[in-house]
Amino acid sequence: MSQYWSSLVHTLTPYVPGEQPKVNNLIKLNTNENPYPPSDYVLDAIKKATDDKLKLYPDPNADVLKKRIADYHNVDANQVFVGNGSDEVLAHAFQALLKQEKPLLFPDITYSFYPVYCGLYGIDYQTVPLNDEFEIQVADYSQECGAIIFPNPNAPTGRLLELDEIEVLLQSHTQQVVLIDEAYVDFGGQSAISLVNKYPNLLVTQTLSKSRSLAGLRVGFAVGHADLIEGLERVKNSFNSYPLDRLAIYGAVASFDDEQSFQESCKSVINTREELNAKLLELGFKVLPSAANFVFATHPQFKAVEIAAKLREKSIIVRYFNKPRIDQFLRITIGNDTENQALCVALEAIIKG
Amino acid sequence: MSQYWSSLVHTLTPYVPGEQPKVNNLIKLNTNENPYPPSDYVLDAIKKATDDKLKLYPDPNADVLKKRIADYHNVDANQVFVGNGSDEVLAHAFQALLKQEKPLLFPDITYSFYPVYCGLYGIDYQTVPLNDEFEIQVADYSQECGAIIFPNPNAPTGRLLELDEIEVLLQSHTQQVVLIDEAYVDFGGQSAISLVNKYPNLLVTQTLSKSRSLAGLRVGFAVGHADLIEGLERVKNSFNSYPLDRLAIYGAVASFDDEQSFQESCKSVINTREELNAKLLELGFKVLPSAANFVFATHPQFKAVEIAAKLREKSIIVRYFNKPRIDQFLRITIGNDTENQALCVALEAIIKG
Repeated sequence: MSQYWSSLVHTLTPYVPGEQPKVNNLIKLNTNENPYPPSDYVLDAIKKATDDKLKLYPDPNADVLKKRIADYHNVDANQVFVGNGSDEVLAHAFQALLKQEKPLLFPDITYSFYPVYCGLYGIDYQTVPLNDEFEIQVADYSQECGAIIFPNPNAPTGRLLELDEIEVLLQSHTQQVVLIDEAYVDFGGQSAISLVNKYPNLLVTQTLSKSRSLAGLRVGFAVGHADLIEGLERVKNSFNSYPLDRLAIYGAVASFDDEQSFQESCKSVINTREELNAKLLELGFKVLPSAANFVFATHPQFKAVEIAAKLREKSIIVRYFNKPRIDQFLRITIGNDTENQALCVALEAIIKG
Repeated sequence: MSQYWSSLVHTLTPYVPGEQPKVNNLIKLNTNENPYPPSDYVLDAIKKATDDKLKLYPDPNADVLKKRIADYHNVDANQVFVGNGSDEVLAHAFQALLKQEKPLLFPDITYSFYPVYCGLYGIDYQTVPLNDEFEIQVADYSQECGAIIFPNPNAPTGRLLELDEIEVLLQSHTQQVVLIDEAYVDFGGQSAISLVNKYPNLLVTQTLSKSRSLAGLRVGFAVGHADLIEGLERVKNSFNSYPLDRLAIYGAVASFDDEQSFQESCKSVINTREELNAKLLELGFKVLPSAANFVFATHPQFKAVEIAAKLREKSIIVRYFNKPRIDQFLRITIGNDTENQALCVALEAIIKG
């Protein structure tokens, strides 16, 4: 608290990211990182870009990256916006597109950064309850609103909304921006990017932090109608002209060039998710159907917070949210085979005593 | 223009950074980059950090970098804030500290991003004219205000305000934050960081983009009282939890470890600046005394815009601002010896015909 703060600062409730522990030998299944490292191709591209040109500012528009993403997703380069992680892309989208006179709608159970952005930008919002199976019901969004946002698959539930449902939503909200936050889509969903040329009110965000194993590089992007992208650019150019550094630009480009490694790591994560699912069911957990690189699970006989604490004693960290409706659930990131086996052994010991 | 933009977006006048040309063989003296590359020590540290750990999120608090900066500047780590370039640090400072009920004061001739931030955050501001020699006069700031910001040395003038003058300002504005933006201080000024433990209303920002040759890496920081830093952290954690990627963190740490290269490159820039000064005077230019890695010069017989155009024909880019009071000036970044000689030859040809 300080007399020098703006009045806004006193009202903020900042986002709290999952723990990044500073000790080694922990099995870290709490922040939905990819268990597989970036490919040598990507690492080599970054090392190659680590040269004398670091003395120069990066291209403020990151044209080479925008073009690569545009080619990958079959859109024009002016339909692509890039930022320092999809969190930055989302922040600009809240200010540029989601702040409207009428309230923003998002699910009651969703990415907990959304209400934080609303606090930062003074955006009125209304949450829409998921149904009892933690599904988004498109019909529930048929109400007065300024814009709509949700992750697909949703977080922390992992549940996917099919594209035809998203089209229904877009068609019934032609006057509002609908932002689909696809941080996890590569692990089992179909991207709504295929719809951006049909719906000028659709903005899709993705990140290289999850499926592309580059959380440490901080790159996210948005795809939509060029007018929506221009709105984002105007805010970005009023905030920080050069959001992506040289190494992030070239590392990200390389990631899109290396399709094989990307597909293989997604496939491995999906396979391990199904193995974990089966084990959790065997141990009596209820597990929501997940299209993401995590599962959301609850056990009828054990308190989630206590399972999390016992896993922590065994050097395994998972994410627990002390929030209404989900305080009996654990969100468990999919690890590699070794990590998953250690998790399964630990859970078996906890559940079966 | 789009019906989907927030009302704010329609009002923005984004910042326009200096050109980053995509052709080679240009002598680029327009964006105040360092003519000397980062040292091998720094490049090697970045390459070493380019490893499997890029799959993980970086430390959201960049503790290792904050501690390194704190040690370097003899302050505590909780007095240091880091961001994705000092532009991001400044953006957060405008929202967290400089947005007050009374207007923000800054010079009429200064970093042209300041009014842009004011537009982004709805901050009322008042400009204070520099005197006829383009100096900041502390007495001119003795007026009702919510906060004060200026670069020292100022940009694009290069003129330095001495620390005793800054102390006068701090003492006469104990109820207001005074932000000193020291992007260029290492080229001839004394940092006000030495004053932060004496004045709880002082925030100092610096960047690694200029004197540390790392514009392409995007790292800036602020030093001040822990309460001011906490205000910045609250905004940052409501915007983007992980503003610095892994490579930026480790590259920046290495830069502070390699004091010798840093000092040598600053010294070379200063020497070249004095050589350029002498040449400009010989050619009839008026040159403002510069403590930065650029000079601000005007010629009584030649239009600045025409000199800039003729230099461009000779593949040399300098910065021209089409703005009141300074539209007869050129801002010329200090290059390396080869670049400086080419510039001097080109200017001589233009001026002497």
